[in-house]
Amino acid sequence: MTDQFAKKGEAWSARFSEPVSDLVKRYTASVFFDNRMAQVDIQGSLAHAEMLAHQGIISAADYAEIQRGMAQIKGEIESGQFEWLLDLEDVHLNIEKRLTELVGDAGKRLHTGRSRNDQVATDIRLYMRGAVDDIIGLLRELRLALLDLAEQHADTILPGFTHMQVAQPITFGHHVLAYVEMFGRDAERMIDARKRINRLPLGAAALAGTTFPIDRLRVAKTLGFDDVCRNSLDAVSDRDFAIEFCAAAALVMTHISRMSEELVIWMSPRVGFIDIADRFCTGSSIMPQKKNPDVPELARGKTGRVNGHLIALLTLMKGQPLAYNKDNQEDKEPLFDTVDTLTDTLRIFADMARGISVKPEAMRAAALQGYATATDLADYLVKKGLPFRDAHEAVAHAVRTCVDKGCDLADLSLADLRAFSELIGEDVFAVLTLEGSVAARDHIGGTAPNQVRAAIAQLRKELN
Amino acid sequence: MTDQFAKKGEAWSARFSEPVSDLVKRYTASVFFDNRMAQVDIQGSLAHAEMLAHQGIISAADYAEIQRGMAQIKGEIESGQFEWLLDLEDVHLNIEKRLTELVGDAGKRLHTGRSRNDQVATDIRLYMRGAVDDIIGLLRELRLALLDLAEQHADTILPGFTHMQVAQPITFGHHVLAYVEMFGRDAERMIDARKRINRLPLGAAALAGTTFPIDRLRVAKTLGFDDVCRNSLDAVSDRDFAIEFCAAAALVMTHISRMSEELVIWMSPRVGFIDIADRFCTGSSIMPQKKNPDVPELARGKTGRVNGHLIALLTLMKGQPLAYNKDNQEDKEPLFDTVDTLTDTLRIFADMARGISVKPEAMRAAALQGYATATDLADYLVKKGLPFRDAHEAVAHAVRTCVDKGCDLADLSLADLRAFSELIGEDVFAVLTLEGSVAARDHIGGTAPNQVRAAIAQLRKELN
Amino acid sequence: MTDQFAKKGEAWSARFSEPVSDLVKRYTASVFFDNRMAQVDIQGSLAHAEMLAHQGIISAADYAEIQRGMAQIKGEIESGQFEWLLDLEDVHLNIEKRLTELVGDAGKRLHTGRSRNDQVATDIRLYMRGAVDDIIGLLRELRLALLDLAEQHADTILPGFTHMQVAQPITFGHHVLAYVEMFGRDAERMIDARKRINRLPLGAAALAGTTFPIDRLRVAKTLGFDDVCRNSLDAVSDRDFAIEFCAAAALVMTHISRMSEELVIWMSPRVGFIDIADRFCTGSSIMPQKKNPDVPELARGKTGRVNGHLIALLTLMKGQPLAYNKDNQEDKEPLFDTVDTLTDTLRIFADMARGISVKPEAMRAAALQGYATATDLADYLVKKGLPFRDAHEAVAHAVRTCVDKGCDLADLSLADLRAFSELIGEDVFAVLTLEGSVAARDHIGGTAPNQVRAAIAQLRKELN
Amino acid sequence: MTDQFAKKGEAWSARFSEPVSDLVKRYTASVFFDNRMAQVDIQGSLAHAEMLAHQGIISAADYAEIQRGMAQIKGEIESGQFEWLLDLEDVHLNIEKRLTELVGDAGKRLHTGRSRNDQVATDIRLYMRGAVDDIIGLLRELRLALLDLAEQHADTILPGFTHMQVAQPITFGHHVLAYVEMFGRDAERMIDARKRINRLPLGAAALAGTTFPIDRLRVAKTLGFDDVCRNSLDAVSDRDFAIEFCAAAALVMTHISRMSEELVIWMSPRVGFIDIADRFCTGSSIMPQKKNPDVPELARGKTGRVNGHLIALLTLMKGQPLAYNKDNQEDKEPLFDTVDTLTDTLRIFADMARGISVKPEAMRAAALQGYATATDLADYLVKKGLPFRDAHEAVAHAVRTCVDKGCDLADLSLADLRAFSELIGEDVFAVLTLEGSVAARDHIGGTAPNQVRAAIAQLRKELN
Repeated sequence: MTDQFAKKGEAWSARFSEPVSDLVKRYTASVFFDNRMAQVDIQGSLAHAEMLAHQGIISAADYAEIQRGMAQIKGEIESGQFEWLLDLEDVHLNIEKRLTELVGDAGKRLHTGRSRNDQVATDIRLYMRGAVDDIIGLLRELRLALLDLAEQHADTILPGFTHMQVAQPITFGHHVLAYVEMFGRDAERMIDARKRINRLPLGAAALAGTTFPIDRLRVAKTLGFDDVCRNSLDAVSDRDFAIEFCAAAALVMTHISRMSEELVIWMSPRVGFIDIADRFCTGSSIMPQKKNPDVPELARGKTGRVNGHLIALLTLMKGQPLAYNKDNQEDKEPLFDTVDTLTDTLRIFADMARGISVKPEAMRAAALQGYATATDLADYLVKKGLPFRDAHEAVAHAVRTCVDKGCDLADLSLADLRAFSELIGEDVFAVLTLEGSVAARDHIGGTAPNQVRAAIAQLRKELN
Repeated sequence: MTDQFAKKGEAWSARFSEPVSDLVKRYTASVFFDNRMAQVDIQGSLAHAEMLAHQGIISAADYAEIQRGMAQIKGEIESGQFEWLLDLEDVHLNIEKRLTELVGDAGKRLHTGRSRNDQVATDIRLYMRGAVDDIIGLLRELRLALLDLAEQHADTILPGFTHMQVAQPITFGHHVLAYVEMFGRDAERMIDARKRINRLPLGAAALAGTTFPIDRLRVAKTLGFDDVCRNSLDAVSDRDFAIEFCAAAALVMTHISRMSEELVIWMSPRVGFIDIADRFCTGSSIMPQKKNPDVPELARGKTGRVNGHLIALLTLMKGQPLAYNKDNQEDKEPLFDTVDTLTDTLRIFADMARGISVKPEAMRAAALQGYATATDLADYLVKKGLPFRDAHEAVAHAVRTCVDKGCDLADLSLADLRAFSELIGEDVFAVLTLEGSVAARDHIGGTAPNQVRAAIAQLRKELN
Repeated sequence: MTDQFAKKGEAWSARFSEPVSDLVKRYTASVFFDNRMAQVDIQGSLAHAEMLAHQGIISAADYAEIQRGMAQIKGEIESGQFEWLLDLEDVHLNIEKRLTELVGDAGKRLHTGRSRNDQVATDIRLYMRGAVDDIIGLLRELRLALLDLAEQHADTILPGFTHMQVAQPITFGHHVLAYVEMFGRDAERMIDARKRINRLPLGAAALAGTTFPIDRLRVAKTLGFDDVCRNSLDAVSDRDFAIEFCAAAALVMTHISRMSEELVIWMSPRVGFIDIADRFCTGSSIMPQKKNPDVPELARGKTGRVNGHLIALLTLMKGQPLAYNKDNQEDKEPLFDTVDTLTDTLRIFADMARGISVKPEAMRAAALQGYATATDLADYLVKKGLPFRDAHEAVAHAVRTCVDKGCDLADLSLADLRAFSELIGEDVFAVLTLEGSVAARDHIGGTAPNQVRAAIAQLRKELN
Repeated sequence: MTDQFAKKGEAWSARFSEPVSDLVKRYTASVFFDNRMAQVDIQGSLAHAEMLAHQGIISAADYAEIQRGMAQIKGEIESGQFEWLLDLEDVHLNIEKRLTELVGDAGKRLHTGRSRNDQVATDIRLYMRGAVDDIIGLLRELRLALLDLAEQHADTILPGFTHMQVAQPITFGHHVLAYVEMFGRDAERMIDARKRINRLPLGAAALAGTTFPIDRLRVAKTLGFDDVCRNSLDAVSDRDFAIEFCAAAALVMTHISRMSEELVIWMSPRVGFIDIADRFCTGSSIMPQKKNPDVPELARGKTGRVNGHLIALLTLMKGQPLAYNKDNQEDKEPLFDTVDTLTDTLRIFADMARGISVKPEAMRAAALQGYATATDLADYLVKKGLPFRDAHEAVAHAVRTCVDKGCDLADLSLADLRAFSELIGEDVFAVLTLEGSVAARDHIGGTAPNQVRAAIAQLRKELN
């Protein structure tokens, strides 16, 4: 009896009367992008075979043959000798066909009690679990690098901006910690997504389960899954985990884009708060003076890529009837590219964070411009007894006068200041200094240097 | 001393030399959509005032006045008497201005130690926490309704489809459980998102914290938050939780769209698997015979709406420098509409699930068409010793013959069948029945009626 | 004989055995957002009735009655007296029901030979045609305002940036013209989209045309359509024009977002290139000194909204079988909100463009920083005979020296400069001036002031 | 004097003190995806060089050398011998470096008066112009294939569906023509987009134009551009044309997804309206009987991919300040993949359209189910004098009776029918036939076979 794939070039199986056209073959094949799952495909097959043998569905001898064949295939793939064939559509059939070449009937028995539908779902989950673990590690590295930067600049004062207008003085360390928080939430979301990734679909077979006496919990245990998918139709058609991962990834990239935007603005000469080491920058083909912050710009651009992949997957699943449809093959490229984009971007940002040099004088000069301590003056008046809304209005008058005069609040004399409120005394000048302003915001989450240091210490503890 | 808002029609504050133009006022005002947060705004203000009084930042008398004023405002809003003014921009200033009218200086003291930046962030989180709790409840109701439907049809056989081609017989109960799983994961994701929603930003003030000796943990406790946001810049600019919620919502709607697609197809006359009660359908203005499944169709369409809101929020945050920017005001409408869409859709689906009538004869007729038990025949051959790949090929030959003859596998004689494999014996006809096929898939997640019943029992336990 | 809608509260029509549930009624009704199409609905109905009468399908007397009834309804709607009923689902049934109340049987004859499917498609197209015409007008107004600004600053020099690093000196007029080009392309796209909007679906009836001897070209002519939709199934299910419009709108908002980003950066104190009039800005609830560029920030945020609506519509149409499905009702809200967002934003930007005050000294100071004329030096060397790549490298050496010394290229002595190339002579200092650099880029599209003036003149001609 | 790229491994140019890190090099390089623009890059460079020589900016000898070198490079690329180097970042520097190796100083002079910013913009536009022309051709091929199918089935009757419920009888030819209309609009949009693609950015140089006396119109003429981009800043930063193309592509794929949805449903055994040739289908790894419509399913899935790319590009451009930023490098992969997806999908659909076999009996059987001629009965009553709304209600009663009896309208006796309206006479049975119903919709766009044939003839004329 000939094997189903022996004459695949002639027809898909004996049920078909003509072969798939070449154009269709190229259009529908996935082997040239899904072969990155080769290692997890083998890992999944071995766990399946082990269970089949344990349950007596295949013989111990067959299992041994499958192990032998797979070991050889693994080697061939690692050494680049494995020949991937378009005719065999995907990573699964390529490996199974080779296995049958190597070990004969034992290979033909491997697919007992499973289908490509549950096999590919298992492979993607195994692959994604590994990718998510890498990303969690890279988020940690990036946060550690940012913590170092924050610690070096726990006292460095720059203007905090809202609406890109000077708001209040803050410390650079405090500013950097905002990103540490964001990437911390990203890690939380990845951990949550991992729970839903790490469930085993194998055993769902085509869509309804199988007539063989399989032991799904055994396979789950072998492969390190937390649980099994509890409904076979759902198991083969579910791609929630891919979408959830892409949504979490889109948030990571959104944070990267915000940080990038700031790095680019900070390195612009009019602002000049930082410089980025030459090794992260490139020049211009025409303008000899240029040194461009390529890495943050490109990363900012890559946000679109990941948002796009998220939409691709949501569109893909919209309105799909149960159970598996061929549409689902389109899940892989967006997913893999999202993994690559995140992995590369996080790695390079963790590296670049250590190549940022801060220019404290430029930051200080900027903080002295824009009436950064106006709120401190209002708070001062409140502490003297004025209701906040009235204090706000009094200071607004003072600022208006300064704008007209072209001077800062601290440049006004006590007499000038008292024109806006008689509650103002000599002690006002202390609250108008940058250091005074920053130090006064001394509560959890505030910008006071000792709060920043406490937050860093706490975060280091959590990351170790 | 005049209050800051006393002459808001003339200028934003004393710092401004001309009033906001009418066109700008309408363009930038949010009061007509953010006033749905009025109750949580009051709730947050009261917790803030309680803390200010406890810390001695305002007097007990001021706190009492604020309580009195807020009680009255709450009543005015509930009774529809409160007058929302465009000139006062948003829900926060509208309420604060009214409070000052009612209680004078105490009202002007309420904003001590906070800013609209942390105030609005707090309001949204309070609002979202409530919305998420509602949605979790509605997901539960929908799952309970589906469990009832599944239980009624734990034995009802219909064809399982892959690629919309008949694959293998399944039970309708099993099919319905696939959706129960999906909505179960949705609930998990909502619970995970809630953790990140339920952190208190208040105390971040404008962006850097405040110079007053506030107690953020006290406010968190009063308002039922699990924790405080640990960095003030992040606290005022973070909208991750809104995006995460919309992503989870997009998955809910994706599941709804899949179920809707199936309901629409199943109710189409050629398929005729179900009918939906008249109260969920409408007719045609021109075609007197029409009864259209409006609800699932409209719900399927609403998937786009939620995907769109997700993209709106991701686009909004892309590349935003710290800390708060006016762009963020655009977070509310997509978020509120997502909440409304989800709430209405889940409620109506939980209701409609009880208005679905199943037509078992049509399902059975369909299962008898399309060689649904071909896999069972292959498995039979495997159990007789044939390797799976050879068994698959043998059955493919048999199906090809049936297609040519226009008959089903069970219509072939034993002799005919043995032409494809000599391993076939009399006992083959048992595996070719629908009941036999379904019952044989008897493992966790499989379609066998007793597995379906066990799954239902387990899910009921989890939902109680 | 009772009319179909006489007892709509009891059942949709005689074909139904129970009324639509209240929840479903609210979920599926569109009247509270589609009544903005009331005027075009009446306009379409009158043109339909005129044709029915001309073709002898209804009597002249019936047509006169319909005209009389519609005139009254139009008045009721304009004066706000018309009562919109949820029970009647949408704008179409509300108006038709009222017409029948007013004119009896003539009203019941209006729907002859049409369906709501082609009626609503006609209404949306009429509405969109008007909206697109408004938007084209607003794009013209914005371009005219920008041309005035460009003309005032045809000679004002600022640094041109790439990668937010100083690249080469340009004129502000030249920079502003870049946006005039963008909004010009937007107008082109709106004009192209209008061609595909302005085709008449009426006559498609439910999906297949009608058995009455209608004259579709007559109706098209009455309503000012360029053509009729040539296939009835396509006519009722096509929403391409809505998607195409939203895509064109997304590009308008993308341009607005880019301009907004620049306005916000330019108004940031470290840059300080411009100020925006107070009437386009607001203050802070806590920081008395703040003046925030709310309008460009909010407009930047609204980009997300329109991108989201585009995705909503694409998702909506994905995979929809022919012909009309209820999903399509979801086209309206995204479309209407896109129209409103575009209309408001363009109007306010045309206004705000006249409220921008330019600070030429700050621009000039910035242009003197960052080696803006390095390319001019390289070009100078090329003109002396050095190949461009070698000239680039020689100037890169010179810039590196300046960076180390903390000076500008023009600060180097001739001797210093000649160390980088002996081709440099006394005449080099002329090319290192900002004015020389700008004036030298004297070709179509270049930044030379006379090119900028020529471009403005040409654009004014095109806009008149 | 050393050339700028001689030591690129050591530093980007003399302005840099350390080389780009390996990680950064890989992250920022584009050569491995932008080298598909190699041929147009050479084409653009040759046109630029020809102009430089004509204007006397380079010598005739240099131009000859550049031509000679480029001819050799072109050959090397076509034969696969060209070595693409990561160190040289992109297609432009790779080719320029090789040119300089081959022809020395003439090669170093090629970049005179241009920058990579305008060079890459020119390359993309040349590439896109070719791609759009291909796509317009493929849309024509697909429409021709569909016209043939429509012509074969101008008389084949199937039920037209709305809401997937039987609406009215239509012809299959008429149904197919709906898609011909959609793909016709797609071609219109591609032609409109081409106008905005086909404008020359070259001459914008880095962002401001160049100091050399270039002739942009000459280059435009050489390269076949309709016009030059009229503002240099806009020229280098504009990616509108890429977004507009992707939006038009998303609509093409939306139409493909709708057609795919119908093909999949029509091939599902319960519907069984068509079969798709084996060469467009594949089987199952587990279920021997399966023949799956892979091509339409996969194409439906690819809709998401193109929607995603559209969002990627919109996100990319959102809020980008002028002029060129590195973000823009991210435009290529989404754009190229969109071109590939569209090209492959259209080609395979044009092919597959000829592999669809129609099953007229199944279509007819379906049309006889679901009261498809109920509207004809209502129209009949209107022609007898009943107002349409009353006629609609009378027929609704009749249908309700049929539903209860389980029969069709034509199965009722004349006496039965007259119970619903005394206007009904013997002649009613003619209007209740499928053929009568279809033939009666005899106006432009209607489903009457002679209208379908007229439409086909008109479309053939337009396509020739």
